[in-house]
Amino acid sequence: MSQLVHVAIAGAASAIGEALVEIAEERGFPIGDLHVIDEGDSIGQSLPYKGRNLRVRDVAQFDFNQVGLVFFAGEVALLDRYLGAARQAGCAVIDVTSGKNSAALPCVVPELNAQRLASMSKPVCVSSPAPEATALAVVLAPLLDLLSLERITVTACVPVSSRGRRGVNELARQTAELLNARPLEPRVFGQQVAFNLLGADDTPEADGHTILEKRFANELKQLLDKPLLPIAVSCILAPVFFGSSLSVSLLCADEVDLDAVSQALEQAPGLELAAIGEQPSVVGDAIGQDVVHVGRVRHGHDDRRQVNLWIVSDNVRKGAALNAVQTGELLIKHYL
Amino acid sequence: MSQLVHVAIAGAASAIGEALVEIAEERGFPIGDLHVIDEGDSIGQSLPYKGRNLRVRDVAQFDFNQVGLVFFAGEVALLDRYLGAARQAGCAVIDVTSGKNSAALPCVVPELNAQRLASMSKPVCVSSPAPEATALAVVLAPLLDLLSLERITVTACVPVSSRGRRGVNELARQTAELLNARPLEPRVFGQQVAFNLLGADDTPEADGHTILEKRFANELKQLLDKPLLPIAVSCILAPVFFGSSLSVSLLCADEVDLDAVSQALEQAPGLELAAIGEQPSVVGDAIGQDVVHVGRVRHGHDDRRQVNLWIVSDNVRKGAALNAVQTGELLIKHYL
Repeated sequence: MSQLVHVAIAGAASAIGEALVEIAEERGFPIGDLHVIDEGDSIGQSLPYKGRNLRVRDVAQFDFNQVGLVFFAGEVALLDRYLGAARQAGCAVIDVTSGKNSAALPCVVPELNAQRLASMSKPVCVSSPAPEATALAVVLAPLLDLLSLERITVTACVPVSSRGRRGVNELARQTAELLNARPLEPRVFGQQVAFNLLGADDTPEADGHTILEKRFANELKQLLDKPLLPIAVSCILAPVFFGSSLSVSLLCADEVDLDAVSQALEQAPGLELAAIGEQPSVVGDAIGQDVVHVGRVRHGHDDRRQVNLWIVSDNVRKGAALNAVQTGELLIKHYL
Repeated sequence: MSQLVHVAIAGAASAIGEALVEIAEERGFPIGDLHVIDEGDSIGQSLPYKGRNLRVRDVAQFDFNQVGLVFFAGEVALLDRYLGAARQAGCAVIDVTSGKNSAALPCVVPELNAQRLASMSKPVCVSSPAPEATALAVVLAPLLDLLSLERITVTACVPVSSRGRRGVNELARQTAELLNARPLEPRVFGQQVAFNLLGADDTPEADGHTILEKRFANELKQLLDKPLLPIAVSCILAPVFFGSSLSVSLLCADEVDLDAVSQALEQAPGLELAAIGEQPSVVGDAIGQDVVHVGRVRHGHDDRRQVNLWIVSDNVRKGAALNAVQTGELLIKHYL
């Protein structure tokens, strides 16, 4: 393989696909040609990149032999259909779709488990974890040596953009109809999501958990390298456009020194610890930001073995596109 | 005291005050005269009751000797200022305000701890618990014999109406301004609440918890008669007008039989168990309903000692006004 790696972004016209192109330019992602590919109505659209317009081409017609690294964004169906072709052409793959298949790929957050890439057979095929798992892993990483973690309980408030642009448009449409006192016909989430909270991010599977809840728990165990840690995840859907908010309880074997926790969070990379009394929020702090914000660091009620946290993070950037580009940078530097 | 007890509702023009009047009429609350009292701009307003209009009178001019039972609704300041006068006049008191003082009064949910009223010295002075504590207590009551509870972890998504009409108006105003692309000036919650989630329902106190979080934990311990049970509560503020949603994790000493849990919930009074795959929501199920809705009954991931639940409930009715009226009915029947 030559020095310059050529790259394709499949699902380029999705929200995360567009963010990948944008972040690749922002960070001066050291690549040769960039191919943007997608399907359906997206073919023929153009995406701005380095002062030019890249034309979105048909993924079905794309020759994966032209590139050394492929990002899959957008719908999981795209990954299902074209992962084989990409691997057959010898491409490294970074999956940023969300769905069942992703869970089967080993996941990487460079700050946490970059070393994992070294031990993998080539071509490397990895996923970027669920945005919520990435956010929590980034916060827990600096605490692992400090806390004797026994159990993690998380309620993740997931935004409508977890369903892509359809979700975003649905919340905007529902809100406008309600404010204008027009009758509401839910189209995407099965019921009213405006001014409401849904008890699950999607229809749960037979075991009662949603796909995202299982991905989140499994990926967090991988990222923390704690396969036996009990992790309970509830993903609820909030009437929020972008950004995930996590209410987290950590149960530890011993009493927790909150000052030490705050100090470790303050010094950790990729994190912003809110001042006491401040509560970071997705709109006020997380959106458009590459760092994960954490606040409300406190004990449980009458219970010093428990630490509670509030975490907010941009689900498109660090949660997905940025993490994938960072992983791509590592791959290109060391493993391609 | 005569057979018919005369009643006053202080803070009658508040959302909960109005709901008290409405529910008293609906249930044929067996009382004599009903006095509606309040302060400020509310004086002179009228409230419909049994085909008449009750005029709201000035609480500062009210002679509490005229009545045997007083409900306090609305702002907690009202309770602070007039509780003494009501007690001095020998009135029984039911507090449905929310705030610090309420936490000092013993709390009652008739289905759970009605017997508590029997042992209290007269005149009885009790509070209706925080709506979220009531909802969770009603769900846990039928499970106490079944589960060896070790720990409860709750994230309660509190609606803007937890701050009364000001909160409701603020969410409506912010949403309209954002949809019309006008600049946003937050007035009530300190920041944007529309399409956002705030990490706390109010400014936390020095120990990191909000007043509501502490009330919730303390009141739940009282209602379940489990003073030593560790309970971690996080109250977050959601862009929802009415109704509270609770994401609950119960950790038990032994493996939990989910079928037995579902059966117990199905048979319990005041509860509605959602069918598997259905997720009750505040807008779709809870608002205007007197029952508490529960769904998403499931184990933790790979962890049969944990049960997770999703609970939604109307914060004005069973959460506050209905529970207070039910308590009042009990008082009138047995303890006045």
